[in-house]
Amino acid sequence: MSLPATYLQMISTVTGDGELRMELVEQKMPTPKPGQVVVKVEATPINPSDLGVMFGWANLAEAKSSGLGKSTTLTAPVPAQGMRVMKARIDQPLPVGNEGAGTVVAAGLEKIAQELMGRLVAVMGGGMYGQYRCVDAAMCMPLLPGDTAKDGASSFVNPLTALSMIETMRMEGHTALVHTAAASNLGQMLNRICQADGVELVNIVRKPEQAKLLKDMGAKYIVDSSTDTFLADLTDAVHATGATLAFDATGGGTLASTILSAMEGAAARTPGAYSIYGSIKHKQVYLYGGLDTSATVLTRGYGMAWGVGGWLLPNFLAKAGNEVANRLRTRVASELKTTFASHYTDEISLSEALKADIVARYNAKTTGEKFLVCPQLDV
Amino acid sequence: MSLPATYLQMISTVTGDGELRMELVEQKMPTPKPGQVVVKVEATPINPSDLGVMFGWANLAEAKSSGLGKSTTLTAPVPAQGMRVMKARIDQPLPVGNEGAGTVVAAGLEKIAQELMGRLVAVMGGGMYGQYRCVDAAMCMPLLPGDTAKDGASSFVNPLTALSMIETMRMEGHTALVHTAAASNLGQMLNRICQADGVELVNIVRKPEQAKLLKDMGAKYIVDSSTDTFLADLTDAVHATGATLAFDATGGGTLASTILSAMEGAAARTPGAYSIYGSIKHKQVYLYGGLDTSATVLTRGYGMAWGVGGWLLPNFLAKAGNEVANRLRTRVASELKTTFASHYTDEISLSEALKADIVARYNAKTTGEKFLVCPQLDV
Repeated sequence: MSLPATYLQMISTVTGDGELRMELVEQKMPTPKPGQVVVKVEATPINPSDLGVMFGWANLAEAKSSGLGKSTTLTAPVPAQGMRVMKARIDQPLPVGNEGAGTVVAAGLEKIAQELMGRLVAVMGGGMYGQYRCVDAAMCMPLLPGDTAKDGASSFVNPLTALSMIETMRMEGHTALVHTAAASNLGQMLNRICQADGVELVNIVRKPEQAKLLKDMGAKYIVDSSTDTFLADLTDAVHATGATLAFDATGGGTLASTILSAMEGAAARTPGAYSIYGSIKHKQVYLYGGLDTSATVLTRGYGMAWGVGGWLLPNFLAKAGNEVANRLRTRVASELKTTFASHYTDEISLSEALKADIVARYNAKTTGEKFLVCPQLDV
Repeated sequence: MSLPATYLQMISTVTGDGELRMELVEQKMPTPKPGQVVVKVEATPINPSDLGVMFGWANLAEAKSSGLGKSTTLTAPVPAQGMRVMKARIDQPLPVGNEGAGTVVAAGLEKIAQELMGRLVAVMGGGMYGQYRCVDAAMCMPLLPGDTAKDGASSFVNPLTALSMIETMRMEGHTALVHTAAASNLGQMLNRICQADGVELVNIVRKPEQAKLLKDMGAKYIVDSSTDTFLADLTDAVHATGATLAFDATGGGTLASTILSAMEGAAARTPGAYSIYGSIKHKQVYLYGGLDTSATVLTRGYGMAWGVGGWLLPNFLAKAGNEVANRLRTRVASELKTTFASHYTDEISLSEALKADIVARYNAKTTGEKFLVCPQLDV
């Protein structure tokens, strides 16, 4: 099979004069090194964690697209504060797209690469929003017979994040979890894992229909943050489960603080001497997303044994080590069409992903909507 | 020596009808159990960590004192929000005063207690704002010959906090420290320890005279948060020291967030590929005080490898274990008049500590001012 001499790859650049620029750049087809393979990318999801790299702090309300086909370009102004925060990436062309799946169409001389020739694989390699991607063979996860590229496109980010939340819980001495934006693709996955593994999970949602969705899939603890009884309901659920660890996808505002208040309120129900310094068991909220880009506001009315911090999958996997990472990956491969199944509402081409009206839709991060980029569709 | 039948002890109560009430309550002189001793308390400091237990969320601007001598009573209204936060302590009379020093005037039958009879000891036992205190002999640290009760009054809270900050730094893999309110009694102590131990320390102060005080005692890195160049200066100091851990006494506002921004800015100066998810080394700010009672506001412009949390000495010591705690205590006892010396600007009686005008002075937490309660002074 002969490969084309060049291929298109999506590139995001913040320019020195305050503009975000995204375009499809023609790249020379690489020759794989001995341990590498070239993957023809067929399906690659748009995850919330991709949006930060794609758009940074640009003002997408003023985004404009121009050009057609492979000349499609998206531009958006970047406010002064965004330029300060993104100082380190100014004028650096960044490839985007964390994960995806496709067919190995060229392989280096080493056995590990050769064995993948012709196979469908999933890859978390970065730069996946492109027609081809050259990666180390060791980064590829071969799909099981019968699984398609679409089945395998989201094999890493959401499945490993959900599994790693439970690993974090065990490693840090907690016994139950709180999760926000709980009706998301990731949240549903987490419910399936927790039910299978017997881990108690408190689901925080923002709308009655999200509560219903989770209830229908068997979730036991569901709390709606849009109701007047939110804090009381959350405290009850935290008390019932004993959860002292939360993963928050929203990041901004007072939600993390409210969760800590509920945990402290639940701890105070346990009989025992009052302590002015609060309960002794450490209460932790990890912010793993930024759906709410406003500042995180902590009222600190929950004693002294608490923490709030960022949580990022690659940092966790590096800390947990290879053995843990391999165990999690093996589980994902074997349950790809059940526990770890993802559902896509839209399939788009590389150039469609740069159209301002389509960007507005997938950047809205609407619960239940998930976009799949199919780089082999005509640009 | 015969002991009086009763003694006075300071008690703080938040009443169900929304009032803070502090008074001197007559207690029956206890008979020590076999492993206990009765200490005649001679000197006991007012630390910032005592003020929370004493006054909670009461509105001290409207505090009033009434009565004379042992009948002196301080009252202050508690706003509705404060009542909610302090729900667990309503109508519970709380003894106050974390630490102090005095003479052992009665001892139980066990050898550990008997050996302390007649000796001057320092104690971190709680309820120290009283004329006497019965505690386990194991909690007493005998003072060295020549040391007075006043020398030993502050043997625990500040010295162990300063030493434990450095222990935390080592345990959690950091190599240098940032400290706020750095000209405080504790901050000066931390400077002496860091200079002796060769640990780099970035001191954050709010006024030029505080900077001068620290400079005169040999501090190398001093940054003034009241200047326009604060963030740039702090980033330079953090870059020079490699500090990725901070202890913040203020708690509220944006200071913790600014420190994390400076740490991220310093990390970004290290050449290497840009990562949209920020620097990989974990950056931590512990809030160990609440000089600023407003909410903590985190802008999150510093990647994903960061944490903010409460830090409390007893929680740390429980986690570090007995061996560490004993090592730290031994060092304090041997350097009580040098590294760990405290200076007091005012010595007051138990009843004076309940006078509204005096409360206003010591509750102002003015840098350089420190009050010592002397329970044997005439009430």
